[in-house]
Amino acid sequence: MKNSFIKLSMFSLLTLAFLDSCKPKNTSDAVTGDAASKVYVAPGKYDEFYNFVSGGFSGQMSVYGLPSGRMLKVIPVFSQDAETGWGYSEETKAMLNTSYGYIPWDDAHHPELSQTNGEVDGRWVFINGNNTPRIARIDLKRFKTAEIIELPNSAGNHSSPFITENTEYVVAGTRFGVPGDYENGDVPINTYKENYKAHVSFVKVEDDGKMDIAFQLRLPAVNFDLSHAGKGKSHGWFFFSCYNSEQANTLLEVNASQKDKDFIMAVNWKKAEEYIKAGKGKKEKAKYAVNRWNDETHSATSTIKEEVLVLDATEFEDICYMIPCPKSPHGCDVDPTGEYICGSGKLAALIPVFSYTKMLSAIENKNYEGDYFGLPVLKYDAVLHGEVQKPGLGPLHTEFDGKGNAYTTMFVSSEVVKWDIKTLKVLDRVPTYYSVGHLTIPGGDTKKPFGKYLIAYNKITKDRYLPTGPELTQSAQLYDISGDKMQLLLDFPTIGEPHYAQAAPADLIRNNGQLKFYKLEENKHPFVTKGEKESKVVREGNKVHVYMTSVRSHFAPDNIEGIRVGDEVYFHVTNLEQDWDVPHGFSVRGAKNAELLIMPGETSTLKWIPERVGTSVFYCTDFCSALHQEMQGYIRVSPAGSNVPLTYSVGTNLPKASE
Amino acid sequence: MKNSFIKLSMFSLLTLAFLDSCKPKNTSDAVTGDAASKVYVAPGKYDEFYNFVSGGFSGQMSVYGLPSGRMLKVIPVFSQDAETGWGYSEETKAMLNTSYGYIPWDDAHHPELSQTNGEVDGRWVFINGNNTPRIARIDLKRFKTAEIIELPNSAGNHSSPFITENTEYVVAGTRFGVPGDYENGDVPINTYKENYKAHVSFVKVEDDGKMDIAFQLRLPAVNFDLSHAGKGKSHGWFFFSCYNSEQANTLLEVNASQKDKDFIMAVNWKKAEEYIKAGKGKKEKAKYAVNRWNDETHSATSTIKEEVLVLDATEFEDICYMIPCPKSPHGCDVDPTGEYICGSGKLAALIPVFSYTKMLSAIENKNYEGDYFGLPVLKYDAVLHGEVQKPGLGPLHTEFDGKGNAYTTMFVSSEVVKWDIKTLKVLDRVPTYYSVGHLTIPGGDTKKPFGKYLIAYNKITKDRYLPTGPELTQSAQLYDISGDKMQLLLDFPTIGEPHYAQAAPADLIRNNGQLKFYKLEENKHPFVTKGEKESKVVREGNKVHVYMTSVRSHFAPDNIEGIRVGDEVYFHVTNLEQDWDVPHGFSVRGAKNAELLIMPGETSTLKWIPERVGTSVFYCTDFCSALHQEMQGYIRVSPAGSNVPLTYSVGTNLPKASE
Repeated sequence: MKNSFIKLSMFSLLTLAFLDSCKPKNTSDAVTGDAASKVYVAPGKYDEFYNFVSGGFSGQMSVYGLPSGRMLKVIPVFSQDAETGWGYSEETKAMLNTSYGYIPWDDAHHPELSQTNGEVDGRWVFINGNNTPRIARIDLKRFKTAEIIELPNSAGNHSSPFITENTEYVVAGTRFGVPGDYENGDVPINTYKENYKAHVSFVKVEDDGKMDIAFQLRLPAVNFDLSHAGKGKSHGWFFFSCYNSEQANTLLEVNASQKDKDFIMAVNWKKAEEYIKAGKGKKEKAKYAVNRWNDETHSATSTIKEEVLVLDATEFEDICYMIPCPKSPHGCDVDPTGEYICGSGKLAALIPVFSYTKMLSAIENKNYEGDYFGLPVLKYDAVLHGEVQKPGLGPLHTEFDGKGNAYTTMFVSSEVVKWDIKTLKVLDRVPTYYSVGHLTIPGGDTKKPFGKYLIAYNKITKDRYLPTGPELTQSAQLYDISGDKMQLLLDFPTIGEPHYAQAAPADLIRNNGQLKFYKLEENKHPFVTKGEKESKVVREGNKVHVYMTSVRSHFAPDNIEGIRVGDEVYFHVTNLEQDWDVPHGFSVRGAKNAELLIMPGETSTLKWIPERVGTSVFYCTDFCSALHQEMQGYIRVSPAGSNVPLTYSVGTNLPKASE
Repeated sequence: MKNSFIKLSMFSLLTLAFLDSCKPKNTSDAVTGDAASKVYVAPGKYDEFYNFVSGGFSGQMSVYGLPSGRMLKVIPVFSQDAETGWGYSEETKAMLNTSYGYIPWDDAHHPELSQTNGEVDGRWVFINGNNTPRIARIDLKRFKTAEIIELPNSAGNHSSPFITENTEYVVAGTRFGVPGDYENGDVPINTYKENYKAHVSFVKVEDDGKMDIAFQLRLPAVNFDLSHAGKGKSHGWFFFSCYNSEQANTLLEVNASQKDKDFIMAVNWKKAEEYIKAGKGKKEKAKYAVNRWNDETHSATSTIKEEVLVLDATEFEDICYMIPCPKSPHGCDVDPTGEYICGSGKLAALIPVFSYTKMLSAIENKNYEGDYFGLPVLKYDAVLHGEVQKPGLGPLHTEFDGKGNAYTTMFVSSEVVKWDIKTLKVLDRVPTYYSVGHLTIPGGDTKKPFGKYLIAYNKITKDRYLPTGPELTQSAQLYDISGDKMQLLLDFPTIGEPHYAQAAPADLIRNNGQLKFYKLEENKHPFVTKGEKESKVVREGNKVHVYMTSVRSHFAPDNIEGIRVGDEVYFHVTNLEQDWDVPHGFSVRGAKNAELLIMPGETSTLKWIPERVGTSVFYCTDFCSALHQEMQGYIRVSPAGSNVPLTYSVGTNLPKASE
């Protein structure tokens, strides 16, 4: 079989890597005449699909409309967002807590829509944090991050957060081997093969969305890359691609590209559940944060957990099976029927398609070619359905249209290739500009793809848009795949790196109980002020709590005196509005903080420690009415130890003494 | 004249304020059939204009292409940006320094393109920071913030940074009166009229762009709102709108809307320069930061200045003249000829247009109706060219097409109104969705507007796009103004609040020496590593400097040992690439920091204080090649006091001892 893999010398490999910005040959930018009308969404009309796009190294998730390519929202997830106060307000800080403390950033790669019976259900999107390993859950009624869970024993949470067909689990496979966070951690790096391990986490998702780690599988220190759950007939299994089966720890571009084949690891997670149930897991010391947003108190809490259940998969013969897969596989994609598993070896020149049925037979017959650090290695031929020959260079990722076709991105040859899942024949190919990574078809990794469009998320931009200095936008391309031939419709730039994305029909989410504002009577924030008459200022030692209201177009109170240098002033601002799209903003001059952006009915808190004597000002930052510019107030700061009494008022120059 | 202003009761005013989200009546969403093709920019083709849009409360500036409405870039200005490391990397922190210390956010309102001879010259964009008063200058060869200057004696830097016709000055008028930062600052707020003052800063711009405060004018504590320089015949003058001539300090929505007229203040800045030259200014104690980016060292420095030159304008009869203007004026816009000054009183139902020529006569003839806190008040009729009658409700801002037409936004009646500057006749009106604030015509506030398009920046979004929970996108609308009638072409969402924007023809900027990468041989960063062989790790006490290189697809070194818990580790990463669009990213697991995004030829530094024993990992966050996923490294952290030697290596498991 070895002859069927390209034998690339290291020189060619590196050349390929450098060639990644070449234009595809024999292709044209030309689009047919109807492209304009196909992507145009007239003013006041709605897009047809929501497109949830990872921000990559921005750490956020953005939401686009398709086919227009218009960005509807950036949802703050793992990174501070000064615009909305995410990570700056007192209520949101806990969302970014980790076992390392507060972290202002992460690298978010793979949005995954929740599923019921293998179909997109429109409840949540999950997304992984790579750098400080975490998974976030975003609530699609509010388009807001509802939960973030950290993953111990992990580094580079890349093959995550793919899910099972009823959202029983989201998984998280580590990209880097680690020596364990707590025991024997201080070991030489060049003892990698002996001392480092990789872990795959199975994170349980409750009916209300709450996540916790059910168990982790301990595995040899390969680099896990991507994954997908089985579906339908293969429900109960999970498939993970891995590279660096060499277990190199330096110069991986050379040393992790030595072997002709790495692996797709098939995990029988139902079997793992049985072992866990039978008490075979080991509770180990660990440290990880579980951060949850509470919609009643409008606040997050962070809990640090101290223990995790670990099952050493190499001690069991029937949990994990290694399927040889050429070469440094990235994509690991299961077709809508659950029968076919496509591996995309980024250094391979073919696409192997494995058969779930054949895999079961091979396991039953112990058709092994050996073992990998204790894990059975199945024979390649015994599991193979077949290979797509000459698909292009650098296959990365495959999705499906539900009509028996697969679409694979080719990073090096910059194209998308359409092929028939059963016959493995290439049916069509279109260029991408340039160096496409992942692609998305709405529902394209589920049992029921919605088809119609394909979006290519590209890694190189160069000359596709007007120049903007050394740093260029990242970019996506929209194709119509409703016909036999794919048709390029639109280039659209994206915010952050559009690493991967998912899409769903607009109505599925739009009609799923979208929240328009928070009901004031349900607001249980401990510092809520439900009416202007209840607004007040309370001193507790050096802490001053301002119970403030905002309504078009004033704050109450808007004159405050008796604050002293060094006080900790907490502005708890309740937005009294009860209508859609009437946020108010709040900021104070000189605060070493961001602003607050407060939705109708919500309470948010800005902390300010005044350091300078004099009058400071605050104002509404979000243009709210014709008299928005008048929505402001003054706060007098006296020297530390001053006896200026604490008073406050609105609409009168006769201040009222505080409680 | 009083009868020509609407007499709105407070009730009606507040009603108007609440009505701001009503759809305009008798209008339709319908767009004519050619709109799709007019806004469609085919894949690989370029937009016609750059559109520089303020992020409002995001604190950044974004760049869009027109007519497509595609966002090409977000330029970090006043707010931390975890995606690029802006405000997190050691080199950029100084850019966000102020007299209050490091501040992670501001509220950026008005981009202003630099001008030569009153025309857009494509060198820089200036933008104001409102909350902690500052002005930033963005370099359009790099699309990067090059300088930020703070403004003392100011609070709410709103009427800024408008410029003179050769970019001699950018100005900054305070929105809030303040009692002075240093002297007599601790005064009761209800002594506002006696103790509070407003200041207008004239910031000098050198030929290379460097800014410093030339002088400030001390003025009565009105709220300055917007401004524009004279041009052509009126060069040498500056015009500022101001509201709250009542000098109210509480509930301004009522108390600052009492008078029928506020003012446009005309400033003879050439005269002010003469007084300054004659030594009439007073050097006063102040504290403000001047932060400059150095393209050779790839680093910013922040200098705190201790003194500012203040000229009390009320002590001179011939610097500032007050022109009565109905009612709470916002826009203050000078037509391309420099003859006409349009005031947009947001609570007025007409648009007054003043004549520069008449103003000079009125001044010469001392045609005053009195004085305002010592400043001469010119007679309204003596300065008036005429009034646009019944233009709509809530006029806010006017720009010009260079063909004798003016276009004014109407916030309350949600429309744009086109009128003839000379005859003052209304020529056309189109609805906006909803509640338009500012508008932009490319070059529309210069001597030479480019015309063709008009963009309305709206304040309310509601149902214009697919819903995204309580928080909705902000939004703009593009109109074709090349014909007699305005034609709505496109709704496009924006990031942050598109408070104001400017636009320029693409070629003017594209052909103006766009930088594609930093030349490695010109890199003077103190910690640059110009080749992989020079990479090293150096310990200085508890500080460890990692001189690291990045190139497709590895870091050097990629194995580091001998780091101890509590060390201050500085990763100085030099991107060795010398080609366009090959950034590398850098991140470390558990760092309480953002990532670095390092442009080709650039050096950036990430600070990390490891707190946990074990091995951490670092990797490239920006997909750079087919072997990007292999671009990673390990760093071993031993306990404090450990004697593991400091070593480093790449491509070998035989580490080299550090220097």
